[in-house]
Amino acid sequence: MLVVMRAHASEEQVRAVCEKIESLGYRAHPIPGESRTAIGITGNRGAVEPGSLEEMTGVQEVIYVTKPYKLVSRDVKEDDSVIRFPGTDASFGATDLGIIAGPCGIETREQAFTVAERVAKAGARFFRGGAYKPRTSPYAFQGLGLEALKIMAEIRERFGLRIVTEAIDNESLDLVEEYADVIQIGARNMQNFSLLKKAGRTRKPVLLKRGMSATLEEFLMAAEYIMSEGNYQVILCERGVRTFADHTRNTLDLSIVPAVQRLSHLPILVDPSHGTGKRNKVLPLSRAAVAVGADGLIVEVHHDPDHALSDGMQSIYPDQFDELVAEIRLIAAVVHRNVQKPLPQPKLAQAAG
Amino acid sequence: MLVVMRAHASEEQVRAVCEKIESLGYRAHPIPGESRTAIGITGNRGAVEPGSLEEMTGVQEVIYVTKPYKLVSRDVKEDDSVIRFPGTDASFGATDLGIIAGPCGIETREQAFTVAERVAKAGARFFRGGAYKPRTSPYAFQGLGLEALKIMAEIRERFGLRIVTEAIDNESLDLVEEYADVIQIGARNMQNFSLLKKAGRTRKPVLLKRGMSATLEEFLMAAEYIMSEGNYQVILCERGVRTFADHTRNTLDLSIVPAVQRLSHLPILVDPSHGTGKRNKVLPLSRAAVAVGADGLIVEVHHDPDHALSDGMQSIYPDQFDELVAEIRLIAAVVHRNVQKPLPQPKLAQAAG
Amino acid sequence: MLVVMRAHASEEQVRAVCEKIESLGYRAHPIPGESRTAIGITGNRGAVEPGSLEEMTGVQEVIYVTKPYKLVSRDVKEDDSVIRFPGTDASFGATDLGIIAGPCGIETREQAFTVAERVAKAGARFFRGGAYKPRTSPYAFQGLGLEALKIMAEIRERFGLRIVTEAIDNESLDLVEEYADVIQIGARNMQNFSLLKKAGRTRKPVLLKRGMSATLEEFLMAAEYIMSEGNYQVILCERGVRTFADHTRNTLDLSIVPAVQRLSHLPILVDPSHGTGKRNKVLPLSRAAVAVGADGLIVEVHHDPDHALSDGMQSIYPDQFDELVAEIRLIAAVVHRNVQKPLPQPKLAQAAG
Amino acid sequence: MLVVMRAHASEEQVRAVCEKIESLGYRAHPIPGESRTAIGITGNRGAVEPGSLEEMTGVQEVIYVTKPYKLVSRDVKEDDSVIRFPGTDASFGATDLGIIAGPCGIETREQAFTVAERVAKAGARFFRGGAYKPRTSPYAFQGLGLEALKIMAEIRERFGLRIVTEAIDNESLDLVEEYADVIQIGARNMQNFSLLKKAGRTRKPVLLKRGMSATLEEFLMAAEYIMSEGNYQVILCERGVRTFADHTRNTLDLSIVPAVQRLSHLPILVDPSHGTGKRNKVLPLSRAAVAVGADGLIVEVHHDPDHALSDGMQSIYPDQFDELVAEIRLIAAVVHRNVQKPLPQPKLAQAAG
Repeated sequence: MLVVMRAHASEEQVRAVCEKIESLGYRAHPIPGESRTAIGITGNRGAVEPGSLEEMTGVQEVIYVTKPYKLVSRDVKEDDSVIRFPGTDASFGATDLGIIAGPCGIETREQAFTVAERVAKAGARFFRGGAYKPRTSPYAFQGLGLEALKIMAEIRERFGLRIVTEAIDNESLDLVEEYADVIQIGARNMQNFSLLKKAGRTRKPVLLKRGMSATLEEFLMAAEYIMSEGNYQVILCERGVRTFADHTRNTLDLSIVPAVQRLSHLPILVDPSHGTGKRNKVLPLSRAAVAVGADGLIVEVHHDPDHALSDGMQSIYPDQFDELVAEIRLIAAVVHRNVQKPLPQPKLAQAAG
Repeated sequence: MLVVMRAHASEEQVRAVCEKIESLGYRAHPIPGESRTAIGITGNRGAVEPGSLEEMTGVQEVIYVTKPYKLVSRDVKEDDSVIRFPGTDASFGATDLGIIAGPCGIETREQAFTVAERVAKAGARFFRGGAYKPRTSPYAFQGLGLEALKIMAEIRERFGLRIVTEAIDNESLDLVEEYADVIQIGARNMQNFSLLKKAGRTRKPVLLKRGMSATLEEFLMAAEYIMSEGNYQVILCERGVRTFADHTRNTLDLSIVPAVQRLSHLPILVDPSHGTGKRNKVLPLSRAAVAVGADGLIVEVHHDPDHALSDGMQSIYPDQFDELVAEIRLIAAVVHRNVQKPLPQPKLAQAAG
Repeated sequence: MLVVMRAHASEEQVRAVCEKIESLGYRAHPIPGESRTAIGITGNRGAVEPGSLEEMTGVQEVIYVTKPYKLVSRDVKEDDSVIRFPGTDASFGATDLGIIAGPCGIETREQAFTVAERVAKAGARFFRGGAYKPRTSPYAFQGLGLEALKIMAEIRERFGLRIVTEAIDNESLDLVEEYADVIQIGARNMQNFSLLKKAGRTRKPVLLKRGMSATLEEFLMAAEYIMSEGNYQVILCERGVRTFADHTRNTLDLSIVPAVQRLSHLPILVDPSHGTGKRNKVLPLSRAAVAVGADGLIVEVHHDPDHALSDGMQSIYPDQFDELVAEIRLIAAVVHRNVQKPLPQPKLAQAAG
Repeated sequence: MLVVMRAHASEEQVRAVCEKIESLGYRAHPIPGESRTAIGITGNRGAVEPGSLEEMTGVQEVIYVTKPYKLVSRDVKEDDSVIRFPGTDASFGATDLGIIAGPCGIETREQAFTVAERVAKAGARFFRGGAYKPRTSPYAFQGLGLEALKIMAEIRERFGLRIVTEAIDNESLDLVEEYADVIQIGARNMQNFSLLKKAGRTRKPVLLKRGMSATLEEFLMAAEYIMSEGNYQVILCERGVRTFADHTRNTLDLSIVPAVQRLSHLPILVDPSHGTGKRNKVLPLSRAAVAVGADGLIVEVHHDPDHALSDGMQSIYPDQFDELVAEIRLIAAVVHRNVQKPLPQPKLAQAAG
C-alpha cells in the first residue's frame, strides 16, 4: 500500500503517518518527491486494511498495491494449466481449442439429442445444456433439473461429448458433480463464495464465468476461492460485462483474455452468445475470440430457437455452428491453435432416424 | 413487445412478421407510421421470448415493453408496505425512518457491545453486524458465524435493538432466521435465486441489497423471487453500483429511491457506507439519502476502525454517528419523516462499566 | 509512479528496472516487501510517461501516483473560492446557495420572460436559457443564437437576474462573453480543450459541467485548463454520468460533491434536471444535492413543457420550482447554508400584464 | 414512441392520454394487451418530445422507438460506402483493409520519417501523427501544430502514404484540410457539433472516433451531423469505451463493428492502441478486430516509446508492427478481406541513409 501526502504536508504530518503505520505492525518507507512525499507500506501478509490512514492530517490518498491472489497467479505456477479428460482427447488450455456447444436449456430429450448430434458432427468435444437455469424472473422456465442431467449423461454415452452444466446451489452442485464432467458456476454466482468453496471441494473441473461487473482482480480472486479449497482445475470464461452500451445485451471484453494470460496460468474461454445476446453477432465475435487468443468457446446452439424456452434470440442454428467451426478453424491456425476434427460417430445415421 | 420495421420494409415483409407472430400464438398489431411501420405484440402472459423475429427480413429492431414483475408492483398493491416488529416501535416504510447501525463484522463480544450501546443511545432501532462475511479474498476474515449470531441475540436482549445480519447460503440462512430479526441478502447474492427462494420461505423480513450492476428491473425481480414464495416482507436497499468513477468505492445511485417508490410499494433504504467506501463521505450521503426520500439507512459504525477486521475505511466513529443522527433528524422533518428518540436504556450506566 | 515487480522477480530484474528509471532521468526507490518489491519513482515534475517499463522482465504492474492538477487544488489555495457578481448579492461558493433556473432553450421572448418572472419571484439569482443548443440530432432545434442572447440581456435588466448560458464554439463564446454573466461549457465539451483555453482567456466566470464519463481527475484537469490561461473564476457542475442504469437518463453522482470539496477550492453545483432526465425526480434530487453540500443548483423550468422545443420531459413547472425552493430552504439551514429571499421586483405586476 | 399504461389504468385514463397525443398533433394507436394497454404514436417526423405524457395519470412508462438517423442509415443507401483516394490504391470500406499507422504525436522530422519508413515498408497505406494533441493536462505536450503538418506532407511525397491527422478546433481544421488527406475528429470531440458541422463542409474524408461513452445511436448521429452538411465521406472508428474494467485503459467494444455494419453503410475501423492502452494487448486485439470484420485499423507505432512525448505505453515497436501485419494478413483472408502488399519504395535505401 502507498500513502500519498498532500503537497504541503509538514514533516510532522509525514512522521505521524509513519508512526501510525508502525503502530499497526507494518513498516513505513517514506519516499520524498519533487512536490510531495509518498509512504510505502510493507510487512503486510495480505492486503492492508488501512482503517483511518486516509483521514490523517496531510494525507491526500491511499493507493492499494498488493494483489491478494496467489494460487491463480503465474507467480506460483509459471506454465499454462491444461485441464484434461482422461480417456478422451478433450481438453482446455492445450493447443486444441476447447469448444463447448449446446442449447441454453435442456427442454426435451429429443431437442437435446438433435442439437448434440449436430454439434458433435461439427467437431465440438463438449456439450452444454442448462438443467438448473438462473432466470431473472421467477415465472420463467427454471430448467428440468435432474431429468436434464440424466439426458445429458445419455448424450455423453451416445456421442462421446463431455458434459458442461451449471450448478446454482449446494444441492444442484452435488448432482452436477455426479452427472457432468465440468461444473459451471454462472456469472450471477461468481461471488457466491459459499458455492465457490463447495465447488473447490469437488473433484471435477470448474468453469467459472466472469460476473457482470467483475474486475480482473475479483475474477481471479473468485478462482482463488475454488483453488484454495484444493481443486486446481479451474477454467475461466469471459461472457460480457455490463456497460452503458445498449446495442448488445452485454459488452464482450475480449481484452481480458490476454490480461488473464499475463497474470494467471489458468485457461480462459469466451462466451459470444451471452456476450452479445444477438444471434447475428455470435459468429463475428467467435472469430474475434479465437483471434485474440482464447483457449476455447462456449456457444448456444438450438435447432428451433423460435420455440426455445430461454435465450432463443442468442442461439445460433446448427448450420451456423458448422460455419462457425469452419471459420475459427482457419483463424486458430494463425494463432498456432487447432480445432479438432469431429469424433467418429459410427451410429449417427441411426441416431438421426 | 414491439417490432420496428426498416424504413423501406415492403408490405410483404410486414405481413410475414405479423404471420410469424400469430403463428407463435400472439396477436400482431401493425401501426403504420410516417417513415416506417411498428408492430405491437399482445396476447403474451409474460415477456415474449421472440426467438428469431429480429432476424426476419425488413426488421430493424425488437423492443421489450412488458415488465415482468407483479407482486412487487403498485399495480398489485397501491399503498406503501410497512414492515413492523411486534412488541416494538421499530419499522421500515412508516413515517419513522428505519435506522440500522453497527460494525461491518462482529469481531468480539466486547466490540459488539461497545458499538451497540452507542448506536442504541443515538436512537437506532436496528443493530447490524456480520456473522458470515462474503469477502473478495478467501484469505480475509470470514466472520465468526454462529458465535456472532449468539452475541447479537444478547445485544437484542440487552439494548432492545432488532438484529439485521446477512445470510450467505442455505445453512447460514437457517441460523440467521433463528437468531436475527431481519435476514439480509447481500449485493453479491442479489441474483442467487436459490437463496432468494429459500428466503422467501422464511417468516422473517428480508433486507435485499441491490446488486453491483443490477438494473431497477432486475432489482425488483429479485424481490419478486422472494415474494413469489410467500414472504411479502421485503425491504430494498441501494448500496452503490459499479461505474467507471473511481473517487468512491461504488457510485451511490440515489435516484433509484424515487424510481422504486414510483413502481413498487416496498420500502427502500440506503447504505452510504458501502455506497461510498470512505468514512468522510458517509455523513453527507446520509443526509442526501434522507433528503431524497429513503425509508431509512444502514450505516457501519466502529469504535476502533484502525483495528477493524473488515471495512475499517468506511466505518464511522460512534461520535460521528451521533452527529449523523442529529443532522438527519432535521432533514427528516423537511420530508415529513421522523427520527425516533433513543429507546430508554435503564441499565446502560452499568453496561458501560 | 510505482513499479510493482512480480513475486519471483530476481535481484537483477529489480536492478535493471532501477537502472532504466535512472537512465530516463528519474530517481528509483526500491521498497522490498514480504512477497515482492515495489519501486517508487521520484524526480518527475509532472506525470511520468513510463514508455516501456511495464514491458520489462519481472514487472507486474505500473501504478500512477502523481496527480497533475495544480491551480484547482487546495494544495495551492486552502480556502474556498467564492465567485461574486459586483453590484449584486449573487454568488457561488458563499453561504448563500447559487440557484440558476430557466428553460432548456430560449424559444420566444414571451416564453423566456414568463419563466424568468417566475424564477425571480421564487428567489433564484441566476437565469439560464440555451441560445446555442448542442443536440444529438442535427435535425433538432439548435437554438435562436444571438436573438436569444439579446432576450436574456433584457431579462437581466428587467428582473435583476444574472445570465448563464452555454457557448459551444469560439464564435458563440465571444457573443456569450459579451451578453451573459456566466459562460457555460457543456458536458459534451468538457474536453474540448481549445474551447476551454479560450474560456480561460475571457474575464467572465465559467460554469464547467462534468463530462458524461469524466473521472474526478479529468474533471479537475478540465478546470485546470481554464485556470492555466488566467481565468480563476470556475464553477464546477455535476450533471449525471453515463452508467448501465436505465431508470434515469444519467446517474447523478452526488458523492463527487464532497470529493471535489476535499481536493479543490472551487465551488460545485448540481444539475438535477439533466442528472435524472425525469421531471418527477428533480425535486427529490434537488433536496439531496443541497443536503450533500452542493454550492447551488441549476434547474430547468418551463411553463409549458408539452410544447418545449427541447428537454420537455425534464423541465419542471414554475409551481414545482416554488415548492423546490421552499424545500431546499429548510435543508440548506441544516447544512449551514442559506437560500436568499427573492429580489424585490417592483414592476412585476405590470410585467405580468 | 410508445406509451405503456399501468395495469389498472382506467378506460378514461387511456382516453385522456390518446386525446393529449392527438392534441399535440400526432395520431394515437391504443393496443389493448392481456394485462395493460400500450399506445403507439405516429405522425411524428422526427423523435417526439413528449413533454408531460409520462406524468399523466395511469401512465407507467414512455418508450422511444423512432431512430433519428437518416443519411448514415442503410435505409437510405443499401450498399457499403467505399472511400477512395484518387491516384492511389488506398481506400476504406473496400476488400482491402485500410491500415493507418504512425506515432501518437509528431515530435521531430527524424522521428516521423523513421516511423513512416517502417510502416510503409510493412504495407500501411496511411500514416497517422498528431499535430494538435488533445491532452488531459494543459501542461502536457500539445503537439507541433503547423510544423507537424508540413512534416507529414513531406512524408506523403516521400513514401506515398496518405496522411490522417486530428483537428481539434476550427483553426486546426482549416490547416488539416489543407495539408492532410483524412481529417480525424477525436473521441473527446465526437459531440463537438460545431466542429462536426464544419468538417461536414470540407471536401476531405473524415475519420470520426467514437466518444468514450457514446451509444451506437449517438455515434451514428455524430456522423449524421457531418453528412447533413454535405460531406458523405465518413469513416467510423471504435477506440474503446469507458467502463468499470481497470485492466485496460478503455474497454474495446468490438461488437459495435457488426452492429454498425447492420445499420449503416459507412466503413468502421478499430483502434487497438487507445482501445487497450497497453502495448502487450495491441497485437491480440488487432487480430480480433480484423476477425470481427472491421474495415481497417489505426495503430500507434513508435521506434523509441521510452522517449515518446505521449502515449509511449501503448505504442508498439516497428518490428511488432511487421508482425501485426503478417498476422492480420492471414486472418483477413478468412473473412474475405485483403491486406495490401507494401507500396514500391524505390528510394528507401537512401532515405534510411
